[in-house]
Amino acid sequence: MARTLGTHALSPTPRHEADDPSSLVARFGADEPLHLDCGIALAPLQIAYQTYGTLNADKSNAVLICHALTGDQHVANVNPVTGKGGWWETMVGPGKPIDTDRFFVICSNVLSSCMGTTGPASRLDGGPAYALDFPVVTIRDMVRAQAMLIDQLGIDTLFCVAGGSMGGMQVLQWAASYPQRVFCALPIATAAKHSAQNIAFHEVGRQAIMADPEWKGGRYLAEGTRPEKGLAVARMAAHITYLSEPALHRKFGRKLQDRAAPTFSFDADFEIESYLRYQGRAFVERFDANSYLYLTRAMDYFDLAADYDGRLAQAFRGSRTRFCVVSFTSDWLFTTQESRAVVHALNASGASVSFVEIETDKGHDAFLLDVPELFATTKGFIDSAARARGLTEPARG
Amino acid sequence: MARTLGTHALSPTPRHEADDPSSLVARFGADEPLHLDCGIALAPLQIAYQTYGTLNADKSNAVLICHALTGDQHVANVNPVTGKGGWWETMVGPGKPIDTDRFFVICSNVLSSCMGTTGPASRLDGGPAYALDFPVVTIRDMVRAQAMLIDQLGIDTLFCVAGGSMGGMQVLQWAASYPQRVFCALPIATAAKHSAQNIAFHEVGRQAIMADPEWKGGRYLAEGTRPEKGLAVARMAAHITYLSEPALHRKFGRKLQDRAAPTFSFDADFEIESYLRYQGRAFVERFDANSYLYLTRAMDYFDLAADYDGRLAQAFRGSRTRFCVVSFTSDWLFTTQESRAVVHALNASGASVSFVEIETDKGHDAFLLDVPELFATTKGFIDSAARARGLTEPARG
Repeated sequence: MARTLGTHALSPTPRHEADDPSSLVARFGADEPLHLDCGIALAPLQIAYQTYGTLNADKSNAVLICHALTGDQHVANVNPVTGKGGWWETMVGPGKPIDTDRFFVICSNVLSSCMGTTGPASRLDGGPAYALDFPVVTIRDMVRAQAMLIDQLGIDTLFCVAGGSMGGMQVLQWAASYPQRVFCALPIATAAKHSAQNIAFHEVGRQAIMADPEWKGGRYLAEGTRPEKGLAVARMAAHITYLSEPALHRKFGRKLQDRAAPTFSFDADFEIESYLRYQGRAFVERFDANSYLYLTRAMDYFDLAADYDGRLAQAFRGSRTRFCVVSFTSDWLFTTQESRAVVHALNASGASVSFVEIETDKGHDAFLLDVPELFATTKGFIDSAARARGLTEPARG
Repeated sequence: MARTLGTHALSPTPRHEADDPSSLVARFGADEPLHLDCGIALAPLQIAYQTYGTLNADKSNAVLICHALTGDQHVANVNPVTGKGGWWETMVGPGKPIDTDRFFVICSNVLSSCMGTTGPASRLDGGPAYALDFPVVTIRDMVRAQAMLIDQLGIDTLFCVAGGSMGGMQVLQWAASYPQRVFCALPIATAAKHSAQNIAFHEVGRQAIMADPEWKGGRYLAEGTRPEKGLAVARMAAHITYLSEPALHRKFGRKLQDRAAPTFSFDADFEIESYLRYQGRAFVERFDANSYLYLTRAMDYFDLAADYDGRLAQAFRGSRTRFCVVSFTSDWLFTTQESRAVVHALNASGASVSFVEIETDKGHDAFLLDVPELFATTKGFIDSAARARGLTEPARG
């Protein structure tokens, strides 16, 4: 079912991408199960991924990008579902801070998402989708799956693992689970655990999806329905948390949408209402509702210190990874305080760490936006680490 | 339909209260319409209210309490729907900061609510409920209705108008619309306009309600359904905004609910999830979904300065009312910054104003909770104003 959104023809749909993605695919059979934290051995497994640039001869220039909750592997190419550019084209590409003329950049769709890596929308042997029969996974499970991909690509040590938000959680988990395999790590706008308030917002979103009768106990794909209204409400609530109050005030304030006076109705009188409704509608065109449940749950469960008797520093003990931790002043979802807790743990563990808090009113979403200080920070950190790693600079015409 | 919630037998239901409230009722016929901001003359009108204490001979000791979004007139008596105590029993009663041994306290259910004052759940002559045929009202309309009640009670000047949140908006509107009729005013945890972020959260709640197929385009009462799931989601999202992140962390953190380990499921593993679900369930037992739409809309539309060419100080020009403005440090829904804007306008208009920012981690809900500094501030302000008004102190046994 092709849909149009604005001027973009949308094809194929996310449903199609779940099984037959417009990406490279790594497949793992019954002999290579993914051992999940819940105790289940998941097989078969497929991982959809994109790469940019060229792996060098000694395989020392690989950068793994970890995407956020509703992101995907299409970092720096046109997204096959939305028809829009990749979500981190500002950061990744030729001559960009993560320079694809120099590095071999990999991004895989995370476990339980809906863009080609196995998840609740996947079908086994053409049967019905897993739906809620898919096991609940963790951030560590996502990282285990990524490590299987990296193994299959024949890469021993990643030069860098980078990502924001849920992507940043994966970065921290990589550094904890596979310290020898990560030369440098760039966790942005993230935390070592999900806060009560963030769990609360996720729970609202899940309840909104589950309240939609079209959700059908999770079996909507088999029943030919889509919980679009519930998923749109979930996205609207979440979207507020990605922005900052000052940015909302600056961008929208109390401005009315295409009208001179309030209509005394429940129409979208205010620009902010119209904007939020659009965000909800656009999201349901590209995302699977059950994947949203699973991914939010994985974030809720994330508490890196819990795996080390509550001592976060133990997670990084003896680590030789170089870290650069980045936060944004107006991010109230993953506050600077959360980043500082990570930095303190890294310091306590004796790791090499730099920390940058970037002044911006763009809120949590800043990691996805045009924030020159983020690009400069990333470039400085990556270039310095590349010199330490002995990677040559690209020749510039 | 009697329901039980915890150990309380719940009877009568909100539906019953909407037409035949367990309160005093003031009625206005076709010859006394309420002229609304939308241009409609609303008639008939009924206003449900409670009173506490005794009106003195010269009718100079009346205090009007204005309730918040989901509050009601049951300030200091057992609520007929929930069976619980009044929502401001800590503040209002014999010997309390607003002392019913001294003052005649009035609280009316606001226009478009569901506890006996005319609103979308009201039926005309036993016919179907108004539903979305009810006109969209404003904070000023609510205050106009309250003024009609005060007129009917034969009270010329209110000694005090007090309230928090949406109640505080009414307090500010009273002071602007009827400056001669308000001796002192106590707006708590409020703002002179609703922010973009707050409109956004309200819009999420409305969309959650309207997404529920049981809402039936607003005609659920006629159709015998209830949009309980949508209303519960709306309440859950709103409830997060009433608390502060530090309080959520302190009260819930990442504590699990009656279990030692995560269940790897979508059960309410975390206490915060269980708490939010309870808040959602409890709310739908006592509140009308359409009233929630109308009241949130009234708050969205509130922008006191807009009625005065954008100059808030003009709203209070020449006012002789004494003001005490109160905010809470951890309130991110109605921030101290919003209260400061009110205080600056009052200063610019030459009004008498004191301002107290109370240090607490209890968030917006602090105005409803046991916050000794709020009680002390209120008592100090009220007692001082009472002396200026020449009101005698109550004899204490």
